Amino acid sequence: MNVQADVGERLAALAGFGAGEDGLDRSLFTPAEHAARATFAAWCGAAGLALSQDIAGNLFARRPGRRAEARPILVGSHLDTVRNGGAYDGAYGVVAALCALERLAADGAALEHPVEAVAWAGEEGSRFPLGCLGSAAYAGASPFEEIAALTDAAGVTFIGARDGTAGLLPNIAMRNGFPVPAAYLELHIEQGPIMERAGARLGIVTAIAGQRRFTVTVRGERGHAGTVPMGARHDALCAAAELVLRVEAAARDLGDCVGTVGALDVAPNQTNVIAGTVTFRVDTRSVDDERCERLELSLRAASAEIETRRGVAVTIEALERRAAVRMDERLRETLRAAILPLGEASLDLPSGAGHDAMCLATIAPAAMLFVPSIGGRSHVADESTSAADLELGVAALTSAIVAVDRL
Amino acid sequence: MNVQADVGERLAALAGFGAGEDGLDRSLFTPAEHAARATFAAWCGAAGLALSQDIAGNLFARRPGRRAEARPILVGSHLDTVRNGGAYDGAYGVVAALCALERLAADGAALEHPVEAVAWAGEEGSRFPLGCLGSAAYAGASPFEEIAALTDAAGVTFIGARDGTAGLLPNIAMRNGFPVPAAYLELHIEQGPIMERAGARLGIVTAIAGQRRFTVTVRGERGHAGTVPMGARHDALCAAAELVLRVEAAARDLGDCVGTVGALDVAPNQTNVIAGTVTFRVDTRSVDDERCERLELSLRAASAEIETRRGVAVTIEALERRAAVRMDERLRETLRAAILPLGEASLDLPSGAGHDAMCLATIAPAAMLFVPSIGGRSHVADESTSAADLELGVAALTSAIVAVDRL
Repeated sequence: MNVQADVGERLAALAGFGAGEDGLDRSLFTPAEHAARATFAAWCGAAGLALSQDIAGNLFARRPGRRAEARPILVGSHLDTVRNGGAYDGAYGVVAALCALERLAADGAALEHPVEAVAWAGEEGSRFPLGCLGSAAYAGASPFEEIAALTDAAGVTFIGARDGTAGLLPNIAMRNGFPVPAAYLELHIEQGPIMERAGARLGIVTAIAGQRRFTVTVRGERGHAGTVPMGARHDALCAAAELVLRVEAAARDLGDCVGTVGALDVAPNQTNVIAGTVTFRVDTRSVDDERCERLELSLRAASAEIETRRGVAVTIEALERRAAVRMDERLRETLRAAILPLGEASLDLPSGAGHDAMCLATIAPAAMLFVPSIGGRSHVADESTSAADLELGVAALTSAIVAVDRL
Repeated sequence: MNVQADVGERLAALAGFGAGEDGLDRSLFTPAEHAARATFAAWCGAAGLALSQDIAGNLFARRPGRRAEARPILVGSHLDTVRNGGAYDGAYGVVAALCALERLAADGAALEHPVEAVAWAGEEGSRFPLGCLGSAAYAGASPFEEIAALTDAAGVTFIGARDGTAGLLPNIAMRNGFPVPAAYLELHIEQGPIMERAGARLGIVTAIAGQRRFTVTVRGERGHAGTVPMGARHDALCAAAELVLRVEAAARDLGDCVGTVGALDVAPNQTNVIAGTVTFRVDTRSVDDERCERLELSLRAASAEIETRRGVAVTIEALERRAAVRMDERLRETLRAAILPLGEASLDLPSGAGHDAMCLATIAPAAMLFVPSIGGRSHVADESTSAADLELGVAALTSAIVAVDRL
């Protein structure tokens, strides 16, 4: 591989790992994810970068700075994917960080700070039940002992997986602790339609939306679909259907927030049996924490009303309540100035999706750059960004690193 | 086993076959169902009845009549269950038929017609995709070659299962063809709350509801739950939720019919992904075929409206359109007269559930007796009928056989 390989070629190469009929499946510490990580490490090694990994499975490729004692600028994203995911979410930011370091080297840029390209472990939470796993460990958001004990659906612990054959990379040094960086930069695809609609090719993230997630269980009464009159039913699926629509309506009415039921399971799930129990997940997000609060109150009010009216029991278990995270104001200004010479105006926009930058923002100034997603599509097999936009993002990231180095 | 064993004791014995945490699983030609069938056959043999089975897996226990050439009166139901079913649905009618024959023998009753207790194969359709499988074969409603080729979820054919170790019973004679009976009687639990609410202990079925079943597929657009604004969504689950509620509302508004969505599956069914596809089953029933027609039209109209408004695609595939089946008027009168001496008024009521009597009604006069279900509950583990009502049902069935013999 040429040390200045095209970002698109590298993404295409990584897309070979975990490819199935309906997109990529590259959960943390699976053979596919391991292969993607090993490939990225090989590219970094070939580029002359010094590799290391930490106990959380995060992988770092370091370019030295003139001031050896200076804290590094971390630049990266993640290599894992959701189930049936795409080739750009995460991988783009990791590969772009490497490309940027290669360009700095090719330009002979002498930076004060060390710069590290980083691949955070398990951002998607598609294997262990914790999103931004590696960056959360790094930022101390989750105690490492708790992360170590997390189990996947098959009962395998994080530590068991990490120390298995698809875990840490062989022949790469372990580093100690989670050193605080000078700053954190992350380049990512937007994963939504806002930039495309606005005709913007570069975005600067203002804030990452806060999120509240719930498991809702509706318990009604099972019964024979042919013999129980409509008026005598306590149909858990009808009650759940009302709640699904209430979540949607509340988010629509409130504005500047989203509310989604993406997962829903019916029991016993038989054509001729009135549903006895329905369990579903509610995901609400907004950069305005007050709106998440109002969505939660709305869900609880609707549940109480439906419980009474339909004679069902509804329980709501909060899985996560995460406040919105603002990106660093000074870094954002620096980024805006750095990309001006590229001739593209940048759009300020919030991120509805969570990112590793959320965690890093708690320990260092953090900022994010977005490039557009074609059709706003993400977490799907045909997630895509144009080659020109991919390239523009790498150029912007490279300029940003230089500018942040001078802060 | 005493030849005049209590009907409740026998049902308790059968409930040992296929018992799990959430009720009985006794699908056709599984070890549990085979054991129940073998046990019933052993009881019949001990009662001096002549056993035979046919190519559809139906099992017959014959009491001879004075007129050897007379066509038999068939009396029975089924021994298979739904998944997580109860101990009374079907099994009660089979065991009661045997008990009735034992009582006739004990009374020295000399009937003109042979009487056969029958256990129909696979009424529930819980293994092969055809309800009333054995009685449909018997009545010629489904060509036997088609039944023979049906496959279960694991790809096993009906014939393969029938000829396997849990299939036909060893050492029991095969009989030829499907001889037309003089009449058919079936005693069954109501499986609904109507009799209990009316305080009736015996019911005479007026008609078995017609049924229309559909598979509905809603195709929307997958997307990231955090990044796609509410106004840009084509959420398949929200569209499906509306349809679930429309089915419920249409059945409520129309009256004298039921409409149920009991099975619904979401894809990809992930918390953070807007649902791309939702598939669900609609089950509509009424003794008035016109109401089933109107429910279907209502479903189609709602789908068309939702397709346009939400930008989703809805397909509706009809799985079954079965007309209502009226029970034989003369037999019903005979039953009513026969049970009068028991001192219990009978309630005329429709059956919302399908029964083997539907099929038999196409080849012979057929009628059904109901006893109440406690709380109207059925197709659940705690399905139950009081011991007194079980006994009353057997007494009524015994009287009914004698009365029908004289017609």
